[in-house]
Amino acid sequence: MNQDYIKPDNWSIIEEGFDAKRVESSESLFSIGNGAMGQRANFEEHYSGSTFQGSYIAGVYYPDKTRVGWWKNGYPEYFAKVLNAPNWIGIHVSINGEQLDLFTCKKVTDFRRELNMQEGWLSRSFKATLKNNIEIQVETKRFLSLDSDELGAIDYSVTPINNDAEIVFQPYLDSGITNKDTNWDDKFWDTIKVSHENHQAFIQAKTMKTDFYTCTFMESKVFINNKPILIEPNIKADSNYASFGYQHQVKQGETYTIYKYGGYIVDRNYDKTQLVLRGKEVLKKAVETGFHALLEKQKQAWAAIWERADITIQGDVKAQQGIRFNIFQLNQTYLGKDSRLNIGPKGFTGEKYGGSTYWDTEAYCIPFYMATKDEKVARSLLEYRYNHLEKAIENAGKLGFNNGAALFPMVTMNGEECHNEWEITFEEIHRNGAISFAIYNYYRYTGDYSYIKEKGLEVLIAIARFWQQRATFSEDKNKYVILGVTGPNEYENNINNNWYTNYLAQWCINYTLENIDKIETEFSDDFTRIMNKVKLSKTELKAWKSVADNMYFPYSETHQVYLQQDGFLDKELITVEDLDKLERPINQKWSWDKILRSPYIKQADVLQGFYFFEDEFSKEDLERHFDFYEPFTVHESSLSPCVHSIQAAKLDRMEQAYTFYLRTSRLDLDDYNHEVHEGLHITSMAGTWMSIVEGFGGMRIKGDKLSFTPKIPKQWESYSFKLNFRNHILKIDISQNQTNFEVLYGDDLEIIVNDKLVLLKKKILKATS
Amino acid sequence: MNQDYIKPDNWSIIEEGFDAKRVESSESLFSIGNGAMGQRANFEEHYSGSTFQGSYIAGVYYPDKTRVGWWKNGYPEYFAKVLNAPNWIGIHVSINGEQLDLFTCKKVTDFRRELNMQEGWLSRSFKATLKNNIEIQVETKRFLSLDSDELGAIDYSVTPINNDAEIVFQPYLDSGITNKDTNWDDKFWDTIKVSHENHQAFIQAKTMKTDFYTCTFMESKVFINNKPILIEPNIKADSNYASFGYQHQVKQGETYTIYKYGGYIVDRNYDKTQLVLRGKEVLKKAVETGFHALLEKQKQAWAAIWERADITIQGDVKAQQGIRFNIFQLNQTYLGKDSRLNIGPKGFTGEKYGGSTYWDTEAYCIPFYMATKDEKVARSLLEYRYNHLEKAIENAGKLGFNNGAALFPMVTMNGEECHNEWEITFEEIHRNGAISFAIYNYYRYTGDYSYIKEKGLEVLIAIARFWQQRATFSEDKNKYVILGVTGPNEYENNINNNWYTNYLAQWCINYTLENIDKIETEFSDDFTRIMNKVKLSKTELKAWKSVADNMYFPYSETHQVYLQQDGFLDKELITVEDLDKLERPINQKWSWDKILRSPYIKQADVLQGFYFFEDEFSKEDLERHFDFYEPFTVHESSLSPCVHSIQAAKLDRMEQAYTFYLRTSRLDLDDYNHEVHEGLHITSMAGTWMSIVEGFGGMRIKGDKLSFTPKIPKQWESYSFKLNFRNHILKIDISQNQTNFEVLYGDDLEIIVNDKLVLLKKKILKATS
Repeated sequence: MNQDYIKPDNWSIIEEGFDAKRVESSESLFSIGNGAMGQRANFEEHYSGSTFQGSYIAGVYYPDKTRVGWWKNGYPEYFAKVLNAPNWIGIHVSINGEQLDLFTCKKVTDFRRELNMQEGWLSRSFKATLKNNIEIQVETKRFLSLDSDELGAIDYSVTPINNDAEIVFQPYLDSGITNKDTNWDDKFWDTIKVSHENHQAFIQAKTMKTDFYTCTFMESKVFINNKPILIEPNIKADSNYASFGYQHQVKQGETYTIYKYGGYIVDRNYDKTQLVLRGKEVLKKAVETGFHALLEKQKQAWAAIWERADITIQGDVKAQQGIRFNIFQLNQTYLGKDSRLNIGPKGFTGEKYGGSTYWDTEAYCIPFYMATKDEKVARSLLEYRYNHLEKAIENAGKLGFNNGAALFPMVTMNGEECHNEWEITFEEIHRNGAISFAIYNYYRYTGDYSYIKEKGLEVLIAIARFWQQRATFSEDKNKYVILGVTGPNEYENNINNNWYTNYLAQWCINYTLENIDKIETEFSDDFTRIMNKVKLSKTELKAWKSVADNMYFPYSETHQVYLQQDGFLDKELITVEDLDKLERPINQKWSWDKILRSPYIKQADVLQGFYFFEDEFSKEDLERHFDFYEPFTVHESSLSPCVHSIQAAKLDRMEQAYTFYLRTSRLDLDDYNHEVHEGLHITSMAGTWMSIVEGFGGMRIKGDKLSFTPKIPKQWESYSFKLNFRNHILKIDISQNQTNFEVLYGDDLEIIVNDKLVLLKKKILKATS
Repeated sequence: MNQDYIKPDNWSIIEEGFDAKRVESSESLFSIGNGAMGQRANFEEHYSGSTFQGSYIAGVYYPDKTRVGWWKNGYPEYFAKVLNAPNWIGIHVSINGEQLDLFTCKKVTDFRRELNMQEGWLSRSFKATLKNNIEIQVETKRFLSLDSDELGAIDYSVTPINNDAEIVFQPYLDSGITNKDTNWDDKFWDTIKVSHENHQAFIQAKTMKTDFYTCTFMESKVFINNKPILIEPNIKADSNYASFGYQHQVKQGETYTIYKYGGYIVDRNYDKTQLVLRGKEVLKKAVETGFHALLEKQKQAWAAIWERADITIQGDVKAQQGIRFNIFQLNQTYLGKDSRLNIGPKGFTGEKYGGSTYWDTEAYCIPFYMATKDEKVARSLLEYRYNHLEKAIENAGKLGFNNGAALFPMVTMNGEECHNEWEITFEEIHRNGAISFAIYNYYRYTGDYSYIKEKGLEVLIAIARFWQQRATFSEDKNKYVILGVTGPNEYENNINNNWYTNYLAQWCINYTLENIDKIETEFSDDFTRIMNKVKLSKTELKAWKSVADNMYFPYSETHQVYLQQDGFLDKELITVEDLDKLERPINQKWSWDKILRSPYIKQADVLQGFYFFEDEFSKEDLERHFDFYEPFTVHESSLSPCVHSIQAAKLDRMEQAYTFYLRTSRLDLDDYNHEVHEGLHITSMAGTWMSIVEGFGGMRIKGDKLSFTPKIPKQWESYSFKLNFRNHILKIDISQNQTNFEVLYGDDLEIIVNDKLVLLKKKILKATS
């Protein structure tokens, strides 16, 4: 772990000094996005060293043919691949005819990169001596506009230091791009038309197969010492490329600047014949507004986000930087504006996991979005699944289920399953449970029952049907068992009676039955409508209940713990502590079969269940299970440490909770798992947020009230967070000796603090923690 | 199942009538081979209908890049792919300028195909009316020479029936071929040189990556009414093709014949610079000898094989045809001449399973070759593994094993693992046990201990080491367990305590310990040499013994049976009989997860263990286990029915044994598994042989004696087989009321018949069965 090159800072991610070996990692860490598009922090100018080029457009993917050595029935025909999109950020820079390329420069000094999270921009500055001995100072800044989310802007300045120099800026668009993840050297884009007009250029291209039409566009303005100059560009264009060369003889000490505006228009938002027209509009407005005024709007937009979502930590700059990095990246990835979009595990920072939707959204992200944005954002994430219900029923049908049972996909772009490892695709069925749980969680937090009666119940029913059909009655145990599953701990495959899955299945059925009763009693119109649609019989309900009432849970009397799965105790139970450091991470050092035989847990599995269903277990239960499983947990999933942090805090093990907190919040910044070059772990960042709010802050919903058991790591002076809760905005400020609750918006609110009811007026209430 | 178009015949496979839908299946069924090369029964002339072109050369493969969606540590870099080799059998035929193509002819009648197994040739005849209304009679015959295994010969004759016609025979060589199994449209052959000289042509080509150099060659002679004629051919040649056009004005009723000689020379046998030269030698000899004399030699060579290997069955032509088809195909695939070669599951009849070596060789094929050929053939198959021992140790090393532990590959061409499904590659470790068992089986049958002391013990030790390291001590069970395996029943993956695997592991260790003792006592020089090499300590031996002595075996008290694996009784135990016919075969109808959850057994698993270690269980044990497992066995592996047939016979359930016999012997002829178009199931054909000899004949080795408990299905009048046993050749003749044993070669021999000692003189002994 430990990049160690990121400077601690409250608001920024800062790298100083140029090191070619760090380029790909930094490209991930300094990624920018605006919910509609995003980019790795690739240099604008040419770079011949090792780099991972990536520019991504939300919702634009490619259904790559599933190719496996050995096909298994039920495999999806394709897997969705997030596509590196046409490049609009590129600016070739030549100095006296020599191309600027940090990899081949004679000397690079004063290199500094900053991702300013408060204001939402990325900058870079350096001095470089080229092979032709011209020394230059370069300053760049770029951002993807929150205000106009089809637009990005770049400020790129070069000052020759030791001589006059002829400098050419050659901003370009390029749709001849490839994917990093292209096993088969395939091309994924068809360029339809390259056009240019005055200082504007457009590339219309569509993705193959999926036919997503896009227009990538750009326009540039050049300046000397901040004064606009007019240069007739040298235009180059071919079948998938367009560039304008702005050549100027720049005097020593003069600063030659280009402002480049660019971005994407997609046919999700406009008719495909109108894309160029819309691009022109966006450019016109951008150029009229100008870089600095656009940047000002960017700062304001980010200020509004932080106003609701910021968490402050005093006395621990690395912890502060960590949580802000997490909140920043989540907001760069998803802002809840478009219910057709969702949150990919790597957001716009890499290609891995196909940029698709996983159960991460329901299990981790929804709580964050509920508390930091309007509740309609979380509801929109729920609706995403409701809109895919028919496809989830089809998907279950392919696996032999019937009668409206649904299996939501493990990985999806459009509701269809698009992952192809049988042990995941077919067996990691707990995802279904997380989708039901999210419905419950949304209602618990927002109190908004309308979603359940309008849409949610149909999802709950389809999932309950799945569980009933998926369970097997074991004559031998005289119980229902669930055979052949993979739990959240993916270091076990095809196991029987995964405790978490069995528990979730039972809960899903019971919760669905409960809601059917409630809707029958309280909303008879909805009840009739839904029953007409789903055709539930008494016999079927009885079958559900029989499964829920007679579910089997593996348990060890010796250890007094639920077993992760049947046979867990047959393993060689050597704790992680006793494992040679050289053997870790085991997912990089061990063969798959060795991992499977080992007791090591990739991510919270039984403990994930204890997290979801906390109220159903005593603190002593939790402690026993935590003490049993934590020692075997290697946390090689980004989703693991946050849950352990929350539970350690609950068990008053603040030192351990703090360690897990750092691990989750600085997972990428410190590169714990040696993989940050592939992109960031976006969805687990919501877990970081939970580890402060639910872990240290002890925030829970009790009945219909917010409840807190505030704690604070000894390393911190104080910390604060805000919550959007049922038409209130609360600010919670926790220091070593007191906690302040403040209602920033909304009426008086009754909350629970350390198990006592407290009435919050619209002013500061002081309660000693 | 049931092709139903193959005519019952004692010695031939016969198809009558042309049906384009059957072409691919027939291409498999009528395949020919000579151990060094083989071909699907593709037509010589052009065919535009659906066809699966395949010509294969033993030992020539391609290491295709392993491409999986999700890489797992330990996966091999490549999988070996059997390659469709350059085509030498092709003869384009044109009649008055129209290409003969059975798919587009106006009319095809009197179509007949025959694979004569007694004499080793394939023929075809038909009448066709072309679109130009010329009616022709075509007769073809071809064979791959056993006598000169680089050579094949074709006799192709056309007789215009209703008119004179200008006929062109255009024999060709083509290295611009592709593979059926080419997911990525790759080419696998580099053509180096196309050359021709007089009536001969040569294509020198090498496989990509593996650099197997080959020369494909041909020479043709043409005749009218059996009289040679001289025609100056019209030569065409390009970068991967060469053809000679022999044009002739043929009178109505005259027969125009071409004899084409062709084949492959490979650099396994000759220096790569000498391949063309060697090709010329082969052609010179072939042309001098002539088609008919070559065919005569072919008949003699096959007569010699049948003399040793034939099994006769009187009174049941389908059963007779089945066993001969099996014996014939085994001999077409492997003749034991070259210890670098082995027996691929599809032989030379298709591409599936990569043409590589599986555990099938040890578990199924070795007994057949021991009994029907000289014992050096079986020994050579054992040596194949010995020669790969270092690679098997490397392979185990990749998976984390050490200290000389070996894991032999699941699938291999050259000793390296080349399969890439984790549940098979890493977990189907029982293959290691079959390799040890084959060493024991060879010694048991041949009495030749020299192999064990010279080579075998090293293999046994490396395998014992693997088992000791692979077992895990379960504190919970106070026993050694083996976690995360796939047994022979591949419809279970990543299971714990597969009874068969655990039993085999225990046996391997014990058998190795026994042989270490024996060699220490009886062959001290060998002992010293081996111990110097393998460095075995007393501590290690103690660790082995501890594992063997404390192995866990899952057992059900209720059912009084060993359980296939932990948790088997949790399944929904619905027998195959109660399964809807429409659901079968489940491997085509069900998703993988559903198969895994089900109780259905792809192939004998516990029963495989009872087969290997028969003497360690009583007949009652066998009966109980057979009755428990057989009802769940779907026999969707070709390797399954033979074992059940043998065991049913042992249990005196002759009707059931007979059904299984038909299933194994006519698996391909009747296409039980709907897949014969992909190629034949070669290795399981040895199982068919076992089901007669060991099943009905009850042949076993007891101590150092052959033992028999002869039985006969009521459908048969009598049957006979021969055995090569320790310098004797025996003929066993079993009819409904008696059994005759005859020593055809060798001294007097004491055998056991129905548990009684019998001395066989060199003359017929009659024992009433």
